[in-house]
Amino acid sequence: MMGPEIERLVGLMARLPGLGPRSARRIVLRLMAEREQRLLPLIAALDAACQRVAVCPTCGGLDSQQPCMICADAAREPLICVVETVADQWALERAAVYRGRYHVLGGLLSAIAGHGPEDLGIDRLVARLDGSVREVILALPATVDGQATAHYLTERLATCGVSVTRLAQGVPVGGSIEILDEGTLALALSARRAAG
Amino acid sequence: MMGPEIERLVGLMARLPGLGPRSARRIVLRLMAEREQRLLPLIAALDAACQRVAVCPTCGGLDSQQPCMICADAAREPLICVVETVADQWALERAAVYRGRYHVLGGLLSAIAGHGPEDLGIDRLVARLDGSVREVILALPATVDGQATAHYLTERLATCGVSVTRLAQGVPVGGSIEILDEGTLALALSARRAAG
Repeated sequence: MMGPEIERLVGLMARLPGLGPRSARRIVLRLMAEREQRLLPLIAALDAACQRVAVCPTCGGLDSQQPCMICADAAREPLICVVETVADQWALERAAVYRGRYHVLGGLLSAIAGHGPEDLGIDRLVARLDGSVREVILALPATVDGQATAHYLTERLATCGVSVTRLAQGVPVGGSIEILDEGTLALALSARRAAG
Repeated sequence: MMGPEIERLVGLMARLPGLGPRSARRIVLRLMAEREQRLLPLIAALDAACQRVAVCPTCGGLDSQQPCMICADAAREPLICVVETVADQWALERAAVYRGRYHVLGGLLSAIAGHGPEDLGIDRLVARLDGSVREVILALPATVDGQATAHYLTERLATCGVSVTRLAQGVPVGGSIEILDEGTLALALSARRAAG
């Protein structure tokens, strides 16, 4: 008995990641209660993103300019960081510790999901290695598929005249030893360094 | 480095109830990745809700028809259930245990928040008690403001020729005794009934 418009809106919201019927209802009620301050600006922002934002043909990131701001930024270092998702790219940008460019795979090699190299734009990555790029950094998840993809890329890029590196693995900053899994502990131990 | 459109959209999403920057980014990326299936339908549904849904002038609920479907439904019993929010109304409708109409206060009497009886449409509620309404059921939260509002309404409606009732209080269905607060236990004990 919510009326068809509200019911449809709650249904669509409830299927967004991290939301369910309860949180969707709460959001919809807030939007309806604050139309001017929340609902209208949200519609306008969704519309603008829908109209203007597209996938960068060079790196696979998202931006309203093509190629994206990062690919177009001449001040970026001649490095390419390979990430699985745009979310991973954003995390690196937020950390502000990397000043190179990116290649967003949009997935990982997976026999189960049926993703082959052609789905990840790897030819596009290879085409970018025109001699100006010094290093390709693999920032892929420490999962079976992530490591298989890193392994594939390492072999594939071996003859491209770039050095291929991976992110270090070990104890995360602020991480308690007690809660770490065996795999991380084994890695952190075998890759230990001189203290001080 | 997300581009201004995406940044604005994430910012607006992150201020919705229950969301934050991380969940907003996740939702926005999913919307951008599935434009046809998710983003366009969501924009259309928000737009439809914004254009068509309004507050029912009779009960304070939300619907695209005025008065709302519930107020207009001649098969509803001559009862009015007073709730704080539209969310409370929806919860009662979902439970499908009540077949009367509603009065949505849109808040509670609160000296701190500065809400008086005129903010809660109580004159509008009194005006609806034209002799056809048999009973007003107060379904207000068991908080200080909720109980103060229930007390005010009980006094105000005493001379209106309707019986005024409140929801029963006690142990919720599926509720473990162990985790109940003292107040609920005291109420449940003093209102105990013959077993079987």
